[in-house]
Amino acid sequence: MQRIEQHASFGGRQEVWQHASTTLNCTMKVAVYLPPAALQGQRCPVLYWLSGLTCTEQNFITKAGAQQYAARHGIIVVAPDSSPRGEGVADDPAYDLGQGAGFYVDATQAPWATHYQMQRYVAEELPALIEQHFPATDVRGIFGHSMGGHGALVTALRNPGRYRSVSAFSPIVAPSQVPWGQKALAAYLGNDREQWLNWDATALIATAKERLPLLVDQGEADEFLAEQLRPQLLQAACEAAGHPITLRMQPGYDHSYYFIASFMEDHFAHHAAAFANPR
Amino acid sequence: MQRIEQHASFGGRQEVWQHASTTLNCTMKVAVYLPPAALQGQRCPVLYWLSGLTCTEQNFITKAGAQQYAARHGIIVVAPDSSPRGEGVADDPAYDLGQGAGFYVDATQAPWATHYQMQRYVAEELPALIEQHFPATDVRGIFGHSMGGHGALVTALRNPGRYRSVSAFSPIVAPSQVPWGQKALAAYLGNDREQWLNWDATALIATAKERLPLLVDQGEADEFLAEQLRPQLLQAACEAAGHPITLRMQPGYDHSYYFIASFMEDHFAHHAAAFANPR
Repeated sequence: MQRIEQHASFGGRQEVWQHASTTLNCTMKVAVYLPPAALQGQRCPVLYWLSGLTCTEQNFITKAGAQQYAARHGIIVVAPDSSPRGEGVADDPAYDLGQGAGFYVDATQAPWATHYQMQRYVAEELPALIEQHFPATDVRGIFGHSMGGHGALVTALRNPGRYRSVSAFSPIVAPSQVPWGQKALAAYLGNDREQWLNWDATALIATAKERLPLLVDQGEADEFLAEQLRPQLLQAACEAAGHPITLRMQPGYDHSYYFIASFMEDHFAHHAAAFANPR
Repeated sequence: MQRIEQHASFGGRQEVWQHASTTLNCTMKVAVYLPPAALQGQRCPVLYWLSGLTCTEQNFITKAGAQQYAARHGIIVVAPDSSPRGEGVADDPAYDLGQGAGFYVDATQAPWATHYQMQRYVAEELPALIEQHFPATDVRGIFGHSMGGHGALVTALRNPGRYRSVSAFSPIVAPSQVPWGQKALAAYLGNDREQWLNWDATALIATAKERLPLLVDQGEADEFLAEQLRPQLLQAACEAAGHPITLRMQPGYDHSYYFIASFMEDHFAHHAAAFANPR
């Protein structure tokens, strides 16, 4: 791993690292915030952030205002790029497919399968790297926004025992039922819709092996709410399965990082409380 | 004035407006954050932010994390673009002259004088517009970063009675003594160096008509510290003149918005305390 950027931030350090990913077969960038406690040698829990469509590892670290809360709670925050990248990596001219739009799945279809293994990268390779190279414990949380909110929910639900906590901002909760998800899942996984359900939080809730409480914030003025996000589908699935969920509809808020920043403190409180509790 | 952007943020609203500036002879964009108190109809004091080289009205509102403090203190925050803009506006290929580099002076030299009247824009036209169109009082503070830190200090020193408070992050404190300033002042004001001193905070301190306390934060790992910023020049001038200054050297911090965000809370406390005190 090679450090390519570092900035003092709220008494800790915002870094960006580059590494050759064996899962994705390309060079990846990942942002790592080390709180003051970590710089002083303490081992800290790790909160993973998954970004939305078009984002790189930069969007979250420059716009979300998360470092102050990570510093206060003593949490390492890891924000990877949202897809494999580079000249040899398959791509599509649309913003919602290919580079910048990995959807956190493991692709099975050509030309995507060679590089688009984002689920294994996020759930396996990246935590192993972080826990090897940084003063990190194996206590993990995961959260994200939009496509990355979908990624966080699905990653937690598919990997019981791996995460202590999960939350999401304006997530795509049912990709198999909305245009963004249908396009991506068809491309990466093929046309067998049964396969899609393994990557759909609303579908996965019914058979979830642990009852990790979900915290979801959703802006009511979000331009993608009715067509692409539809959080009530997740809420209904949770109610049917007895799965704990707190869905907060936030009047006036849109899909932007202004919304994310406004409720970031609450998400850190949610994850920090879970990290502090023995399982 | 025409609103071109709006986002709910920390219970208030981050807006961007566009207007025809009579001072600058061009269309200008300006960001305005309205705290919850202003949305509820209270008149609020206004804090003006001046950005650094290359910045538009976007940098501060997306990266500084200021909205939470503005919301808490009930302060309107106004962040204009850093220079006149547009096809008919004189420019230079260098990043440190022309568009994005107005230096907050009133230019006297061709081809700049037609549009580059940033001091009159910031100190006169903009406050008049804000106080007419928004629920603002005439209680004002001003702060900024780098070239904008210079702008904030000079604007407060040149306009006694107009601002209740001033502060700066990594300001260019003595433009007549450093390369960035010498290049810009020569272009905008001509080669008579006596004229430059009217736009140099370190020179203006000796004859300041009011003793507005200066708060200055400066990162010790700032790559521009030794050549362009040199805050000790301002500190020495303040000591010679008996002008109150708090210069805080911050170990490890660089010139970026990560630094600015880390100490934003303190700057809001500084301005809010001045706003609360009767003169």
